[in-house]
Amino acid sequence: MGFISTPVKGMNDFTPEDMRLRTHVLSLIRDNYKKFGFDEIETPCMEHIENLSGKIGGENEKLIFKVMKRGRELEKGLQTGEIADSGMRYDLTVPLSRYYANNRAVLPSPLKALQIGNVWRADKPQKGRFRQFTQCDIDILGESSCMAEIELISATADTLSKIFSEVGIREFTVHINDRRILKSMALAAGFPEDKLDEVFITLDKMDKIHLDGVRESLLEEGYDAAAVEKYTAMFSNIPDDTDVSRFCGEICGDYLDDGVKENMDIIMKTSRALLRSGVSLVFDPTLVRGMSYYTGTIFEITIDNYNFSIAGGGRYDEMIGRFSGQNVPACGFSIGFERIVTILRDLGWKEPSDGCPKTAFLVDKKADADKLLKVFKAASGIREQGGTATVEPLAKNAKFQVESLEKNGYTDVRKVYPDTEI
Amino acid sequence: MGFISTPVKGMNDFTPEDMRLRTHVLSLIRDNYKKFGFDEIETPCMEHIENLSGKIGGENEKLIFKVMKRGRELEKGLQTGEIADSGMRYDLTVPLSRYYANNRAVLPSPLKALQIGNVWRADKPQKGRFRQFTQCDIDILGESSCMAEIELISATADTLSKIFSEVGIREFTVHINDRRILKSMALAAGFPEDKLDEVFITLDKMDKIHLDGVRESLLEEGYDAAAVEKYTAMFSNIPDDTDVSRFCGEICGDYLDDGVKENMDIIMKTSRALLRSGVSLVFDPTLVRGMSYYTGTIFEITIDNYNFSIAGGGRYDEMIGRFSGQNVPACGFSIGFERIVTILRDLGWKEPSDGCPKTAFLVDKKADADKLLKVFKAASGIREQGGTATVEPLAKNAKFQVESLEKNGYTDVRKVYPDTEI
Repeated sequence: MGFISTPVKGMNDFTPEDMRLRTHVLSLIRDNYKKFGFDEIETPCMEHIENLSGKIGGENEKLIFKVMKRGRELEKGLQTGEIADSGMRYDLTVPLSRYYANNRAVLPSPLKALQIGNVWRADKPQKGRFRQFTQCDIDILGESSCMAEIELISATADTLSKIFSEVGIREFTVHINDRRILKSMALAAGFPEDKLDEVFITLDKMDKIHLDGVRESLLEEGYDAAAVEKYTAMFSNIPDDTDVSRFCGEICGDYLDDGVKENMDIIMKTSRALLRSGVSLVFDPTLVRGMSYYTGTIFEITIDNYNFSIAGGGRYDEMIGRFSGQNVPACGFSIGFERIVTILRDLGWKEPSDGCPKTAFLVDKKADADKLLKVFKAASGIREQGGTATVEPLAKNAKFQVESLEKNGYTDVRKVYPDTEI
Repeated sequence: MGFISTPVKGMNDFTPEDMRLRTHVLSLIRDNYKKFGFDEIETPCMEHIENLSGKIGGENEKLIFKVMKRGRELEKGLQTGEIADSGMRYDLTVPLSRYYANNRAVLPSPLKALQIGNVWRADKPQKGRFRQFTQCDIDILGESSCMAEIELISATADTLSKIFSEVGIREFTVHINDRRILKSMALAAGFPEDKLDEVFITLDKMDKIHLDGVRESLLEEGYDAAAVEKYTAMFSNIPDDTDVSRFCGEICGDYLDDGVKENMDIIMKTSRALLRSGVSLVFDPTLVRGMSYYTGTIFEITIDNYNFSIAGGGRYDEMIGRFSGQNVPACGFSIGFERIVTILRDLGWKEPSDGCPKTAFLVDKKADADKLLKVFKAASGIREQGGTATVEPLAKNAKFQVESLEKNGYTDVRKVYPDTEI
């Protein structure tokens, strides 16, 4: 077998330049979430195949990278047909639910968890969509009160404000909805309860096909014309400053519990008051969020000029119960790290300088051992003072070497010959 | 299929407490290596199966977690028997070699690369040995001079000094040898050239079975008794301050090139002069390093009272050529991150305080929306000043909640009732 020098399909090699941006953003995220009291935790990148294929991951379950059994286990598998016993996690929420069920006894309650990690999906590779990518999730487990939603929204918005301010962006929008409102609206319009998930798949295309497209699709799919008309009319002309309680009261009537409206009111009012200047929060009854595990509030963040969301999440009160047999209220918000990085790079992000000197010593091969030791000691001295120093042989093509180092931020490049004083 | 709440066999869930230690050590490593001019890079966690099974990974190739083909590819595989097209990387060196071959055009030369990442080995799980673990590697690619070895040794030793000083340890030992010295000694003793790798597997057990055990094993394996006696005699009574040139000259004779001796002399003399107080560097002719890809200098770091190495590496000038067709000099040093973390935890590591206040607001459920907003605004104010603040509902078992927060470092826990002034 020959060696292959390209990375596995759909996955990336990151250069030092890529990594400067990635590690900078990750450390901003980590530091800022810590100020909100989120504690970092970690789960393995592999999960039991049973946990990944339990119908809670929706479409992602079709995209699992399966990991084969080994040795005797594999031989057994070849006879029975089951040859994979684990798989790469496709998100951080399923592993977190398993983790909470497994470690609850030693975890604080509520647990405010920060997870930063890779996930894998065997998706069709395309621009901006990768088969291995990094997610940054915060979740609050064991808290049913809407304080969880408010903390998640303000922590995520605050973190994004800090990140985007580095490229001069202050404007983005938090969209908020509730699965129960979504459901009540469809029921009030007259759709049958067992068809709701399919209706929502069509509604979810609103940003691409617009309201007219949604109406046409629903009619094509054979739904009752009166229900379709009533439903689509609900979504026309919703002002940004909608009074959500009144809107839901008028539209959903008895299909919606008063508690849901009050909950939404307090989340919106409080979160809005905490956002930085430039950030908007809007009630968005078209917001669906694909995963079927959401049970209450759902949210998403978009940014002008980019036709994708940069963060999303919601409440999933019934997932942990799948692992532990006992439901635990849970709510999370996930930052689309790869998308953030793409936007920052597009907008010409530059690494903030730490103001420390970077010195390169380029040593001619004729320099003797004593000279070499002096150079290394000088380099140590610079590092002790907080600077960066590298010691390398002087290349034949010294001009290219110096240019390459200067491009890499070295402000002081010194050539060292046998007679150079150090 | 039922859900399983434990992690996959041999892999770990990390609690917030675990993670505080892990992220602290990782950021020490990252920051310190950057001062030595190492630039972080990253490769995907999966590699083409061809690259992982090309006989450069030694025993690790038996431990690959194989990832299955998908869809039509898998169907093809079921007919021909090849059902895996990729696997989880078992180290960071093979992927780095592929990476360099793939990206050389845009990389500086020499490339001083830092990699921090997980690797996977389907090893038999046991204490301190996991199936997913983190490695921290530095490598210098494109540099044949011994400046590479000196930079790697002093950067790694300096980083370990900084880490271990947090638990009061200043002593550890860098062991150094050269594959060419290893080979010459065995040839000079009279072992046949085609048996050397097997002889070294036995020699490598020295720390467990001692010199007498090595002698017995070699005799049992049927080697010429005179060769075994001559060989084992070479290893007795090597003082710490051995003059390596003289030792090698006397023992290896013409089997060893003078350049190798001079190279070792300059690496040892210079590196030793750069080590912090407490750190030793010794010539260790029993040092083997398992991987067959090493071509020159090899090194390992041990610490008193622990019977395992905490870092290891060496020169592998012929590996990148396997991917690009063109050899590139390369040398690396890998820190055994999991072992470092184990030692620090054993020795009672405590997180250094950042001196910033940590405040928790515990809000009674009777508090109204206005009160809640005031609390969230107060929390924002604390964060703006650099502190940490969390807002949570006051639990029924408030005593336990307060204790748990205090254990987690919260110095200021405030209960908020409807009549509490904020």
